[in-house]
Amino acid sequence: MGFNREMFSYGSAKSAIREIAAYGARRRAELGADRVFDFSLGNPSVPAPDEVRAAIERALALPPCELHGYTPASGLPAAREAIAASLRRRFGERAAEADGLYLTCGAAASLAITFRALCEPGAGDEVIVVAPYFPEYKVLIESAGARCVEVPADPETFQVDIDAVAAAVTPRTKAVVINSPNNPTGVVYTRRTLEDLAACLRERGEALGCRVQLVSDEPYREITYGAEVPWVPDVYERTVVCYSYSKSLSLPGERIGWVLVPPAHPERDELVACVAGAGRALGYVCAPALFQRVIADCVDVPSDVAAYAANREALAGGLRELGYEFVEPDGAFYLWVRALEPDAASFCERARALEVLPVPSDSFGCTGWVRVGYCVGHDTIVGSMPAWGALARMYA
Amino acid sequence: MGFNREMFSYGSAKSAIREIAAYGARRRAELGADRVFDFSLGNPSVPAPDEVRAAIERALALPPCELHGYTPASGLPAAREAIAASLRRRFGERAAEADGLYLTCGAAASLAITFRALCEPGAGDEVIVVAPYFPEYKVLIESAGARCVEVPADPETFQVDIDAVAAAVTPRTKAVVINSPNNPTGVVYTRRTLEDLAACLRERGEALGCRVQLVSDEPYREITYGAEVPWVPDVYERTVVCYSYSKSLSLPGERIGWVLVPPAHPERDELVACVAGAGRALGYVCAPALFQRVIADCVDVPSDVAAYAANREALAGGLRELGYEFVEPDGAFYLWVRALEPDAASFCERARALEVLPVPSDSFGCTGWVRVGYCVGHDTIVGSMPAWGALARMYA
Repeated sequence: MGFNREMFSYGSAKSAIREIAAYGARRRAELGADRVFDFSLGNPSVPAPDEVRAAIERALALPPCELHGYTPASGLPAAREAIAASLRRRFGERAAEADGLYLTCGAAASLAITFRALCEPGAGDEVIVVAPYFPEYKVLIESAGARCVEVPADPETFQVDIDAVAAAVTPRTKAVVINSPNNPTGVVYTRRTLEDLAACLRERGEALGCRVQLVSDEPYREITYGAEVPWVPDVYERTVVCYSYSKSLSLPGERIGWVLVPPAHPERDELVACVAGAGRALGYVCAPALFQRVIADCVDVPSDVAAYAANREALAGGLRELGYEFVEPDGAFYLWVRALEPDAASFCERARALEVLPVPSDSFGCTGWVRVGYCVGHDTIVGSMPAWGALARMYA
Repeated sequence: MGFNREMFSYGSAKSAIREIAAYGARRRAELGADRVFDFSLGNPSVPAPDEVRAAIERALALPPCELHGYTPASGLPAAREAIAASLRRRFGERAAEADGLYLTCGAAASLAITFRALCEPGAGDEVIVVAPYFPEYKVLIESAGARCVEVPADPETFQVDIDAVAAAVTPRTKAVVINSPNNPTGVVYTRRTLEDLAACLRERGEALGCRVQLVSDEPYREITYGAEVPWVPDVYERTVVCYSYSKSLSLPGERIGWVLVPPAHPERDELVACVAGAGRALGYVCAPALFQRVIADCVDVPSDVAAYAANREALAGGLRELGYEFVEPDGAFYLWVRALEPDAASFCERARALEVLPVPSDSFGCTGWVRVGYCVGHDTIVGSMPAWGALARMYA
């Protein structure tokens, strides 16, 4: 083939999650929506808050050339200032400055830009991810020319296994990616976990003569049920924060988010330039202008987690009663459930026969579990319980 | 530095165009907008057509979860079908199919994805550009791991110099980029130019055993003043078309465009997969959803070029009368004017002293000319004429 083989394989590979979702859509068409229990996707089921609509209406009152015109590559100064000010109100005076923010087209863009800014293609750079992990991390890391090094999480708590990370750090380690609240496990990393990780990265970095960045991917930061989500740059100085409004404001299709190099980062100015350069090199030279204005207006609008909280309670309560084992979900909208046989794919096949559609953990780099996305209608949770019961009885 | 050096240099380099524009903004604040004649930018001065507003209002009537939700990575099927159908109506039954379209976040994204799909980093791939050219081409080509090979245009007509391209093609040539209507020259490539280029690429490809792609970057396709803009895939079979609605619908900030692998491309299926894979690898997994719907609705809305046509007439007429030499502008909204001394930067310094702000051709990879962007208010054109006259007299 005369083209890029790696791109061909990325474009030809089937996504297990999308295949399950497509199967679910077909079955809904055949059986009716109330007969299929599709837990495959992470698409918010809560509508964008009313403030988003109001902000769109306000923006539409601007002259069209101003509203729809190019903004600076890093974003509208007013939008960056509004975001930085909100972060300072929430996380302290040193949390963020406008000129450390680069507005992007969503979380995938934020990560693509960050990995590209950090890694030198051909230099053998390594980026550590904690398995189970969002599968696009590997694609984005490899496409930045680095190697994706998988380190298993603690198998009981699904917190970071600090010793495993310490053992995986080498002089070529450029970064460790963390994602808390976590997709797929729903776990929120404790302050203790983050402090231990920070100490580990400092110590290994010093021992090996390298500076390890912490890439904190935070699209689920606002989707929590009481757990504290510490501000990672407070715990580790070499942190880059990647954010998106896909979940917090239910705007996944509008592609709006940011990369933050915090003021306290020891190589802040260099890294800010690298982020801007990577944005330019990848074609991210202006985040969608209308939604830059919308998020600037909605920066302090609380996320509506009531529906997810009710779903979580119904799902966790129901599965607990049926004897399923799962990780207590502190955040995001996923329940991480132990499959009732070692082969999660085979377990999911049996579930599928009952019209229940979770995602096997193999898609996320580990075996023996399934992800049950509860960003669905409450009726889907309630209606699925007899099928979950029948599934459990098959293994009894 | 521990980060990516190339990204650092992209992020640290000053853009001459943006510096001139920033100077213009400062001078406007000091002197008043009517005293500064800023021709530096390519930001549309014509507002988005009313149909865009109507389409936004229609989209806003959808339920928010549907409106703002993820779309397939390549775009909404209905949007892709609407675009393909419009292309078929304009350019014939074989012009486009929905599944050859990948919706993107604007022209820079379309090009970044295309270069990444075509080129193998580390393989020594080459991409030919015709100078003068849009300077981001070089950044996007290099960041896809290829070498940007500059070939001068015909120095009289600024059409493609076919012999120069023929001489530049090597076994490593992956693609030639063309941009017609052209930024910065305003030239529209004639059918004859395209046919000669196609013959040249076929012949050189056969002689050297390589398959050269033609990347046709067409954000200015609709901004013309009577000239025919041939449909490039009709002329050369290995064409990829990159498009954006930034100029045609005056939506530069909303980041919406597409990549098309036409049905007649001999390696169509492979290349479609490579484009999808490159989109994924670079983080372009869903173009902004609201504007996918807007462009689907506005796909046949004609571009409003009346204001640009009036500006073009006033500018070209005025400069002709003052004795300036320029290339007859068939399209886009740029006049390519010969500097009155060999050093275009020095000429622009003198112009700046008279508050006239064109861009020296050095920014576009050639010497001795300036780009005068006429996507400005008509008063700016008219008001600038005495200063252009004074400038000419300095050299008389």
